[in-house]
Amino acid sequence: MNFKTYVEATGKRGVELAKIADQVSRDSGVTIAVAPQFTDLKTVTESVEIPVFSQHIDPIKPGPYTGHILAEAVKAAGASGTILNHSEKRVKISEIEEILSFANASDLVTLVCTDTPGVSAAVASLSPDMIAIEPPDLIGTGVSVSKARPELITNAIKRIRSVNSSVDILCGAGVSTPEDVGKALELGTHGVLVSSSVVKGTNPTQLLENMTDEVLRSK
Amino acid sequence: MNFKTYVEATGKRGVELAKIADQVSRDSGVTIAVAPQFTDLKTVTESVEIPVFSQHIDPIKPGPYTGHILAEAVKAAGASGTILNHSEKRVKISEIEEILSFANASDLVTLVCTDTPGVSAAVASLSPDMIAIEPPDLIGTGVSVSKARPELITNAIKRIRSVNSSVDILCGAGVSTPEDVGKALELGTHGVLVSSSVVKGTNPTQLLENMTDEVLRSK
Amino acid sequence: MNFKTYVEATGKRGVELAKIADQVSRDSGVTIAVAPQFTDLKTVTESVEIPVFSQHIDPIKPGPYTGHILAEAVKAAGASGTILNHSEKRVKISEIEEILSFANASDLVTLVCTDTPGVSAAVASLSPDMIAIEPPDLIGTGVSVSKARPELITNAIKRIRSVNSSVDILCGAGVSTPEDVGKALELGTHGVLVSSSVVKGTNPTQLLENMTDEVLRSK
Amino acid sequence: MNFKTYVEATGKRGVELAKIADQVSRDSGVTIAVAPQFTDLKTVTESVEIPVFSQHIDPIKPGPYTGHILAEAVKAAGASGTILNHSEKRVKISEIEEILSFANASDLVTLVCTDTPGVSAAVASLSPDMIAIEPPDLIGTGVSVSKARPELITNAIKRIRSVNSSVDILCGAGVSTPEDVGKALELGTHGVLVSSSVVKGTNPTQLLENMTDEVLRSK
Repeated sequence: MNFKTYVEATGKRGVELAKIADQVSRDSGVTIAVAPQFTDLKTVTESVEIPVFSQHIDPIKPGPYTGHILAEAVKAAGASGTILNHSEKRVKISEIEEILSFANASDLVTLVCTDTPGVSAAVASLSPDMIAIEPPDLIGTGVSVSKARPELITNAIKRIRSVNSSVDILCGAGVSTPEDVGKALELGTHGVLVSSSVVKGTNPTQLLENMTDEVLRSK
Repeated sequence: MNFKTYVEATGKRGVELAKIADQVSRDSGVTIAVAPQFTDLKTVTESVEIPVFSQHIDPIKPGPYTGHILAEAVKAAGASGTILNHSEKRVKISEIEEILSFANASDLVTLVCTDTPGVSAAVASLSPDMIAIEPPDLIGTGVSVSKARPELITNAIKRIRSVNSSVDILCGAGVSTPEDVGKALELGTHGVLVSSSVVKGTNPTQLLENMTDEVLRSK
Repeated sequence: MNFKTYVEATGKRGVELAKIADQVSRDSGVTIAVAPQFTDLKTVTESVEIPVFSQHIDPIKPGPYTGHILAEAVKAAGASGTILNHSEKRVKISEIEEILSFANASDLVTLVCTDTPGVSAAVASLSPDMIAIEPPDLIGTGVSVSKARPELITNAIKRIRSVNSSVDILCGAGVSTPEDVGKALELGTHGVLVSSSVVKGTNPTQLLENMTDEVLRSK
Repeated sequence: MNFKTYVEATGKRGVELAKIADQVSRDSGVTIAVAPQFTDLKTVTESVEIPVFSQHIDPIKPGPYTGHILAEAVKAAGASGTILNHSEKRVKISEIEEILSFANASDLVTLVCTDTPGVSAAVASLSPDMIAIEPPDLIGTGVSVSKARPELITNAIKRIRSVNSSVDILCGAGVSTPEDVGKALELGTHGVLVSSSVVKGTNPTQLLENMTDEVLRSK
């Protein structure tokens, strides 16, 4: 669950949202991780027991880098993992491997976003812990994965599995409803990346509960 | 005092360093502001009374921007201002005005880093609260402002004053010793930006005390 | 007249378009400059007598910079000037002054694009030869300068003149028709930047003739 | 042979250098391709018969992209291929696949530079025509491939071959002497990328002849 820089997920409201996810996760037994903004990381990790992710880290070692995101700092704030290469924060190919290496050195779980089947396979060959497929046809288009052509996801899974048999695969775009969650799992992904539907929704608790119900049903 | 992403200023060590600055500032009566990493902003603002700055903010409004730095988030973490356009985090010219506007809307004091006299004047015409001049000949060269040609600073001040009579001017590079602080003030700046000399120094308390002594002496 | 990377202005079609501009300029006595793609610069400069501009140059000296645009190379291809900081190719503030300096050293006329009145003044203080104001409300919005609020242009002119009395000022966005040209000149600019209306229009010769007529009328 | 933006390979001097490569290639029967600057592409392709490459192309279709490099424009200038992701011009991972697709659509041969074995394999899975391995330990360090640990190259070849059996592999860094050429071929690469040693050397003809001799000897 990516908080992005939505005002509904900033500061105290971010902590409240994380607590809701924490509660739903405990009640349902379904793993939910949250990715708040950098400035809220520490407060959130101190308020919940579920995994907390950073939204990005930079390919840097400790040193003179003003305004950058250091793996060690994210770890010190209590994060257990990091997103990287999100469609809103793409990085260069040489940087992905570096970031994975810095994240590993700080014992951070890595979740790399990718778009096409080709790019998904390319990233899979660098052995991140998780890949979140964001098909270009689903990013910010309002088209949901349950309405889209299934091969947008299944082709990427096939290409990923041809080079990497163990990476966890998430559906990273087009998921707004419990139905979308069910569809994403049915297509072979291990989970989903959600954001605005929950963060900006009128009832995050209810929506998360319905989504986790769908996860339990699909098992 | 810019903490950059030095390991000596990350997490708990960043909080400790901020407390030292807080103590020296109270004892001396000289204003010291600290700029810790984003992930440490909230803990630092809760631990000290001196002004706390962000190292950067992005030119964005609340919304779908994964991995970005939102003015509102920095403010919610308790920061009272932000650095921007540091030589390690340069931004595009169109973005400077946007960031200044977002910072103002969140009631954040703005400190823009510049390099040459020309760029300093260009930025001054956008009316930030403070400008920190980082002459290219002093950035990361090991040459200190007290040893450098004085016109590196005085020319920039002249150009800034030709378009802006009220912006506060800091010496943003080449300051490692109390002597450098004295020289920077003598050349007409209102203060200095320090980083590695204090952060990575063997005795930050002593060095900050000697620097504030120099400030008091030069009044 | 900015050729951008339109297919109608690529290769031989770019040369043909430049020849049309050359002919209209000679017939009317109104100065028209063309900015073809880098790969067409040399052929265009060999085919016309009007000024030919590069669409961008990078802030580099001759050296190991693969895939970059060198001022000396643009000059060697016969260009007499360069656009820089176009809204489709923004550069960092520290780079503008560097590029201006490299362009001057290669005897290239400089045309810097800017957006707001503040940024226009900031750039004006760096003394380029020309500024093309591209008000954000007119960039790619389909709103023409003759329909827009006049202060979008006049405020920028005022701010520019407060720091620079000699720079030539162009209207850089929102110009598609002869009427727009007339309006832009009436508002106090010295000329206009046009692109798709001519490049992708059905009759570039006719449109350019009507635009130059409007320039002559407004004198 | 990458001309970069060296002054010795700009304008007329670039054409002369290309002619030397053309002559040595014909005399020896060894394929040499040249990659001049964008502004010299057309003149060079009209002056030689050997393959001419662009140093970069942008991930764009024809349209409103001022200052960008369009595949169609490079092709129109006579180029037969393009370098991409050079260490001096890295691109984002999502862009590599796009650029490969645009290059293919314009019938341009693709040569992608990579650094580590992991990144080399990731890129190989996107099926470019050629990969030039630039081991970080050899980029701009003055260490030559014939002096370096052989596994810097052989490990990358192994990783590439695990996902792609047909891509041509070049040694992209650390090659300055005929001996380096021999070593690179001995390690299993199909050719080399050279730049400053030839471009800035006192006798490009002689050096290229000695290098092609080495290629013939190693067959």
